[in-house]
Amino acid sequence: MRLLVIGGVAAGLSAAARARRIDPSLEIVVLEKGADISYGACGLPYYLEGRVRRAEELIVHTPEYFRKERNIAVRTGARVVSISHPRREVTLDGGERVHYDRLVIATGARPRTKDFEGATLPPHVFTLHTLEDAERLKAYLCDKQPKQAVVVGAGYIGLEAADALRRNGLAVTVVEQGPHVLGRGDAELTKAVRERLERFRVELQLNTRISAVERRELVILATGLRPNVEIAVEGGVEVGRTGAIRVDEHMETNLPGVFAAGDCAEAPHLVTGRPAYIPLGTTANKMGRVAGANAAGRRERFGGVVGTAILNIFGMGVAFSGLSVEHARREGFSPVSARIAAPSRPGYFGGKPITVELVADAATRRLLGGSVWGEDGVEGRINVIATALHNRMRVEDLEQLDLAYAPPFATVWDPVLIAAQQLSKMV
Amino acid sequence: MRLLVIGGVAAGLSAAARARRIDPSLEIVVLEKGADISYGACGLPYYLEGRVRRAEELIVHTPEYFRKERNIAVRTGARVVSISHPRREVTLDGGERVHYDRLVIATGARPRTKDFEGATLPPHVFTLHTLEDAERLKAYLCDKQPKQAVVVGAGYIGLEAADALRRNGLAVTVVEQGPHVLGRGDAELTKAVRERLERFRVELQLNTRISAVERRELVILATGLRPNVEIAVEGGVEVGRTGAIRVDEHMETNLPGVFAAGDCAEAPHLVTGRPAYIPLGTTANKMGRVAGANAAGRRERFGGVVGTAILNIFGMGVAFSGLSVEHARREGFSPVSARIAAPSRPGYFGGKPITVELVADAATRRLLGGSVWGEDGVEGRINVIATALHNRMRVEDLEQLDLAYAPPFATVWDPVLIAAQQLSKMV
Repeated sequence: MRLLVIGGVAAGLSAAARARRIDPSLEIVVLEKGADISYGACGLPYYLEGRVRRAEELIVHTPEYFRKERNIAVRTGARVVSISHPRREVTLDGGERVHYDRLVIATGARPRTKDFEGATLPPHVFTLHTLEDAERLKAYLCDKQPKQAVVVGAGYIGLEAADALRRNGLAVTVVEQGPHVLGRGDAELTKAVRERLERFRVELQLNTRISAVERRELVILATGLRPNVEIAVEGGVEVGRTGAIRVDEHMETNLPGVFAAGDCAEAPHLVTGRPAYIPLGTTANKMGRVAGANAAGRRERFGGVVGTAILNIFGMGVAFSGLSVEHARREGFSPVSARIAAPSRPGYFGGKPITVELVADAATRRLLGGSVWGEDGVEGRINVIATALHNRMRVEDLEQLDLAYAPPFATVWDPVLIAAQQLSKMV
Repeated sequence: MRLLVIGGVAAGLSAAARARRIDPSLEIVVLEKGADISYGACGLPYYLEGRVRRAEELIVHTPEYFRKERNIAVRTGARVVSISHPRREVTLDGGERVHYDRLVIATGARPRTKDFEGATLPPHVFTLHTLEDAERLKAYLCDKQPKQAVVVGAGYIGLEAADALRRNGLAVTVVEQGPHVLGRGDAELTKAVRERLERFRVELQLNTRISAVERRELVILATGLRPNVEIAVEGGVEVGRTGAIRVDEHMETNLPGVFAAGDCAEAPHLVTGRPAYIPLGTTANKMGRVAGANAAGRRERFGGVVGTAILNIFGMGVAFSGLSVEHARREGFSPVSARIAAPSRPGYFGGKPITVELVADAATRRLLGGSVWGEDGVEGRINVIATALHNRMRVEDLEQLDLAYAPPFATVWDPVLIAAQQLSKMV
């Protein structure tokens, strides 16, 4: 009985490792098209910045580790070009065929590169998606010592790249075709990010479309990801409306015994109730675990996501979870929102102002989303909001949460509770 | 229509302020027996330590503020000695009678002082409950320059006092009659606290009962609180099994129109499903708000507590929420627990080891409690656990929470999720 996994980063290796734990007798083979496996892609901006000195520090485990410690065969440089489910086999680009009994598709995503789609990027144009991308960019920075850079896209990769390049002394401009940063449709959050960027002399140009990259200037393309679904689709795997692979709650595709997980697949969004495409490493790991368990014979369920994300922009944490007002309206809710600013903890313990915005549905009083930004205590607050969203909490219950308080850590009324009180008056 | 509030610290003033917001026409009178109102009692250890320079910095609002800004009459030094509900009046110690239409009892609690019960404490023996207590102790430290201190009780007040005194250069011994710190019945947590105390050369003596205070040594009594219920009970208000005032979910006592809130009252515990006595400032504020709203004619509900607490011991955060294994067993659950240690965030962002222990019921897989300790990121993790407890989450849902991840803030598998995974294997 062979479990074959296509993709050796987050979801693929989570699936393989979980399947191994459940079934020691299973043969498990992982095929990774790149040179590296098991790396923390979210650490790439910090390798670029220099905080992480060597790219290898981001690698969690080697193929040798998986072979020796987990009895999992990991092949790098193994690119799958087709899947034949009737024959239960995949074909590699060299023509080799590999049989499977169960298959996990964890082919990930790739950067949207627009004008460059299908072509090799010019030498001064970069993406920041793989370890190889980061190493290529790092080498360019060392060799060419560029003085300025343009980052295309104000999503989290773009903003993290802008932070890293600025800290390396480059003059940085971030160009975003939409009216807001982070795809959040939130004017206040955009304003806070813009102010932070300006304070560190990074220029933000919104509503600006790059028509062509003409100058020999360093360009980082960070305009989002698209799922790698081509070989899956050609093999008969169905995609959903988001364009990513459609899976059921067991991470199984329309083909029995074929699972998908990670950045190539949809995940159910617990607030909208519909499948979403939100490629993130945390979700990839969770989906991978469920796919691996079920490929090994279990019947586990992936509950879904609430769209939580966080990033650091020049020392300011910016986080959100669930829906913005704009998104909630598009989904047919009647959103109301409240936004407050309060200290993260008492001043005598170094508290900093923190902004919390909460969104609820006026019809049901259900919490729909929230965003948090500030220099201190952002991660803890967004995680309370995320946990509340998982549980479909209503505003009146949120405002009574028994959160931890002592002066070194928080104020007696936590900012989340203050925001919930404000919102409670409005729904 | 007069709302009378007995007690002018957390619950009493929250009730008064909320009632005022709801009904601008209500006459509101607050009677406070002490000299100070509206102070953050949780900040007292930091005044003792010296981080908070002046006691007045802990005062949030003055009686003048309440009179001018809120149209609330606050009388300090006004000690209520009896309540006559049939006559709808209270009597002050000077004999003055004050009428009420609605009454909120927020008489708080007082330190258990054992052998000294009823008597004035000797000049070298202190409690740390009121602003006056802290000022008296601070003056003693300045005048007498004591070299050593004994703290009786290893609850959070005792441990915070030990930290503050040690930082002032005193040799400190903490004496606790029970086998564990923080009343938590948790050997591992006790071990972590003991190690921390020893590292900062504070001696911890467990299972030790103080029979008498003989030497002229500085003694801090921190052996817990008992609710101030005497005048309420004499006035016909019923107490529950915990000894604190029994209230319904509207914070109303057995006497119609008489509400109770804060450290004198019970609160429903959402994990045990029974009333609990857990006197804390956060809960007092929340109960006060509900009592005030309902005294002003609303019909709001206080959901209850999950027993969340946090404290800082020489730079280590220690927090818990819900039930320990021991407590869960006493409540009739079949508890299983898992404990893990993991970095609070990646090492390249200064992550520190954090320990998370989770307790679940084997029969239902429901989360029952958790504890967290470490030098970084403790408050955020305990708040996720607290929010999960409010929502009666099961272990398999907890382990899939969509928590925020980026390297400056967390690891890709948050310690709470790792602990939940471990626990999931056991239930």
